[in-house]
Amino acid sequence: MLTAETYIRVRYGEVDRMGYVYYGNYPLYYESARTEMLRKFGLSYLQMEDDGIILPVMDMHIEYLAPALYDDLLTIKTKLIKYPAVRLIFNYEIYNETRELLNKASTTLVFADATTKKPRKAPYYFLNRVKEFF
Amino acid sequence: MLTAETYIRVRYGEVDRMGYVYYGNYPLYYESARTEMLRKFGLSYLQMEDDGIILPVMDMHIEYLAPALYDDLLTIKTKLIKYPAVRLIFNYEIYNETRELLNKASTTLVFADATTKKPRKAPYYFLNRVKEFF
Amino acid sequence: MLTAETYIRVRYGEVDRMGYVYYGNYPLYYESARTEMLRKFGLSYLQMEDDGIILPVMDMHIEYLAPALYDDLLTIKTKLIKYPAVRLIFNYEIYNETRELLNKASTTLVFADATTKKPRKAPYYFLNRVKEFF
Amino acid sequence: MLTAETYIRVRYGEVDRMGYVYYGNYPLYYESARTEMLRKFGLSYLQMEDDGIILPVMDMHIEYLAPALYDDLLTIKTKLIKYPAVRLIFNYEIYNETRELLNKASTTLVFADATTKKPRKAPYYFLNRVKEFF
Repeated sequence: MLTAETYIRVRYGEVDRMGYVYYGNYPLYYESARTEMLRKFGLSYLQMEDDGIILPVMDMHIEYLAPALYDDLLTIKTKLIKYPAVRLIFNYEIYNETRELLNKASTTLVFADATTKKPRKAPYYFLNRVKEFF
Repeated sequence: MLTAETYIRVRYGEVDRMGYVYYGNYPLYYESARTEMLRKFGLSYLQMEDDGIILPVMDMHIEYLAPALYDDLLTIKTKLIKYPAVRLIFNYEIYNETRELLNKASTTLVFADATTKKPRKAPYYFLNRVKEFF
Repeated sequence: MLTAETYIRVRYGEVDRMGYVYYGNYPLYYESARTEMLRKFGLSYLQMEDDGIILPVMDMHIEYLAPALYDDLLTIKTKLIKYPAVRLIFNYEIYNETRELLNKASTTLVFADATTKKPRKAPYYFLNRVKEFF
Repeated sequence: MLTAETYIRVRYGEVDRMGYVYYGNYPLYYESARTEMLRKFGLSYLQMEDDGIILPVMDMHIEYLAPALYDDLLTIKTKLIKYPAVRLIFNYEIYNETRELLNKASTTLVFADATTKKPRKAPYYFLNRVKEFF
């Protein structure tokens, strides 16, 4: 299993009339969190795109347990639980500064060829880098 | 059951480097779709907030079947399947102009008091308006 | 001069804690407005990109006179004042349903080659289509 | 004069089909930058709102010199040039990792009463904190 923690400060423009982070802004936080997780393990999403591989999201599930608020410094705990042969399944938990669990989510991404848009195997260097954790 | 159709033109700023609508922008489309559905039945989300009722999202699930693209004119089919005593469960399907199903989603919203933030029953006029459809 | 009117309903996710449309969301409205203006005159921004032409924004100025609010149905009046040889200068005015002027803005876009990223002349069919208005 | 530097990593969802940060996402970066500048000087935008003061944006001007790209780690240099009696005028410069100037902007914010929405003087503690810099 791969794990990582990322810290995100809630922006004013991400908060709605209720004073809550708008429910549609959490996917931006998850995206930051999984990108930073990959970076921590020496893997770059940008490099993969430059190599002709894209990672579209197939599926997302979010449980909104309590609202994140303006200026909160959030901790996002990210996990990659399963060995990523073709799909990357990330789990996320978001906590505020009082360690309250605000939000749980999972996203499934699939490796695909940037030209044909067809699913493909993860690149060799990617699998090689993560295999020791599974 | 309540149903409605909404039409949304994809904005340039909603599309990512892959040329796909960013996976985090669909929640904005669902929000428009359910607001327009309520308006079609004479119900106003704004009016409910002015009456001290908020409707935070509790849960969202999205399946991304095929990408929506820049300038696509999308059709969003929205359904409210269950009688909404405390929770509103909306289902959505998004189609492009060639009638391809791109995206399926559901969101659960809960009626809450704007001051106490506690869940509460849907307002009487809301239930009265929709009861004939269930 | 080319002119057009576009109508945009303010989404919940576009409004901030003050209850105002977030100052960074107006550029999305201007983008919709100028795209719809071009469409009205038979010109497609998408088609231009498919032809290898991009139109990055060089400059933007916004005066926020009064806030747009959630669920407002906005009218955006768009003008293309000058003959667009290399640059497109759009002016915008946003009004709410009570005809109050909320917002004035201008944006300068430049025709550029999608591959070299260098500025270039507007395509012939574009100039041909708009020349009668100047 | 007050100055500060803020660092922002460009998110995938902030980048458009051209591969450039969408022109409407820079205001989010400026907002982060000015909030962090205030925090550096012991001032909290959140605290001001909790005290019944809002700071709507009156005016914004942006020059887009070169595009910020996905995954760029941007440096935002922020300046508050004039003593802020009623208005806060921030200037921003955004640089990428190769020290290229990408973007210049200014925003004018006005202190206003959260209830009446009328302009008001900056709070005493705010002026007291910044006066030594002017």
